[in-house]
Amino acid sequence: MALKLHGVAMSTCTARVLTCLHEKEAEFELVPVNLFAGEHKQPAFLAKNPFGQIPVLEDGDLTLFESRAISAYVAEKFKETGYDLIRHQNPKEAAQVKVWMEVESQQYHPAISPIVYQFFVAPLHGKTPDEAIINENLEKLGKVLDIYEEKLSRSKYLAGDFYSLADLFHLSYTYYFMKTPRANLINDRPHVKAWWEDISSRPAFLKVASGMNFGEEK
Amino acid sequence: MALKLHGVAMSTCTARVLTCLHEKEAEFELVPVNLFAGEHKQPAFLAKNPFGQIPVLEDGDLTLFESRAISAYVAEKFKETGYDLIRHQNPKEAAQVKVWMEVESQQYHPAISPIVYQFFVAPLHGKTPDEAIINENLEKLGKVLDIYEEKLSRSKYLAGDFYSLADLFHLSYTYYFMKTPRANLINDRPHVKAWWEDISSRPAFLKVASGMNFGEEK
Ligand SMILES: N[C@@H](CCC(=O)N[C@@H](CS)C(=O)NCC(=O)O)C(=O)O
Ligand SMILES: N[C@@H](CCC(=O)N[C@@H](CS)C(=O)NCC(=O)O)C(=O)O
Repeated sequence: MALKLHGVAMSTCTARVLTCLHEKEAEFELVPVNLFAGEHKQPAFLAKNPFGQIPVLEDGDLTLFESRAISAYVAEKFKETGYDLIRHQNPKEAAQVKVWMEVESQQYHPAISPIVYQFFVAPLHGKTPDEAIINENLEKLGKVLDIYEEKLSRSKYLAGDFYSLADLFHLSYTYYFMKTPRANLINDRPHVKAWWEDISSRPAFLKVASGMNFGEEK
Repeated sequence: MALKLHGVAMSTCTARVLTCLHEKEAEFELVPVNLFAGEHKQPAFLAKNPFGQIPVLEDGDLTLFESRAISAYVAEKFKETGYDLIRHQNPKEAAQVKVWMEVESQQYHPAISPIVYQFFVAPLHGKTPDEAIINENLEKLGKVLDIYEEKLSRSKYLAGDFYSLADLFHLSYTYYFMKTPRANLINDRPHVKAWWEDISSRPAFLKVASGMNFGEEK
């Protein structure tokens, strides 16, 4: 039975899992969730994810949520097919992948997500982006990127000289961030810029990016 | 060669890893880091963790940071000894452990950590705890705990009827939270309260908790 991913292709969290599924050449069906109709807050969806958020993955009778947990599950389940995202044959490399996956989750995401929210989501609620929130988080993000710049001057990717789930986790938020007037934060750092151009041009992500048109005219 | 953990026993992030090491009955040495002298911002420490934060684990020539990544590495490396924290013989249970580890990281931690910070760290900087920040995050935490209450009415622990790394991840912040005047958020929810009493009385955590006296008179 094919996997069922409940979500919306243009959402950052769904896009994370979609990219992973494409890298693993896994068969799946994308089941759309109507966020505007509040489908994710209805009992049928809450039974799958009590937090009422997308994405959700169903694999037979197993129901999973949280995009990073789903991605790690998919990368492990399909470790023998597609691109190896977790270095499963090398425990030391696998450990570094875990470290930099956590760096994305604990250091990068808390800084970049409020910026993307202000530029893309606040306007939908009729608000102008809050400059104070944006600036505070740009400063945090800049500090994280300084550390990335140094790391990426020593290895081609975050966890080492191999692309991994750690890099992949950065794609969806950074993709929207690069559409904001503050893309210079990435572009001004040569190693970060080269890394971004590399990871964002992988075929698995290009397929996903083509659907990431949130906030654009239809 | 024994593992070396660089950190401070009373810090929440170090305590997370310490608890995991005790559950796995792993041999290790705790190497103290003098935060007050700023040792974690000196070149020798930054070479281990460029983010300048504790904890750091050294296992031979492997250097790891981020407490959740270190814990996952330890749980995997010592999967055959001590208590099995990751259900490594059951892929479905292992997947649920991953989901609830992420819930801690993405839903619980962002709400509880600012509260603990306001009560314990702000006073050290000569500030009174910020009521607005506390109340905003108590509201968020309450919503997360409502979901936990429902989940824990159906299974004894978060990922299922077995204690796991997902529960363990909650210990250190909740321990300090329970010393604040807002402990009722846990105590008012019967299943959450029973879960808390259970997980916080495990011998591995009791060893760690005895050193968690941050903010108390010496
Ligand atoms: N930590 C979660 C976050 C999920 C999340 O925030 N999903 C958003 C879309 S990107 C959503 O469902 N928003 C609707 C809502 O929260 O009500 C994950 O990584 O899966
Ligand atoms: N996400 C990191 C956070 C580490 C962290 O915040 N460590 C604190 C102690 S609990 C620290 O080193 N603080 C000093 C600082 O950030 O300058 C982890 O889980 O290891």
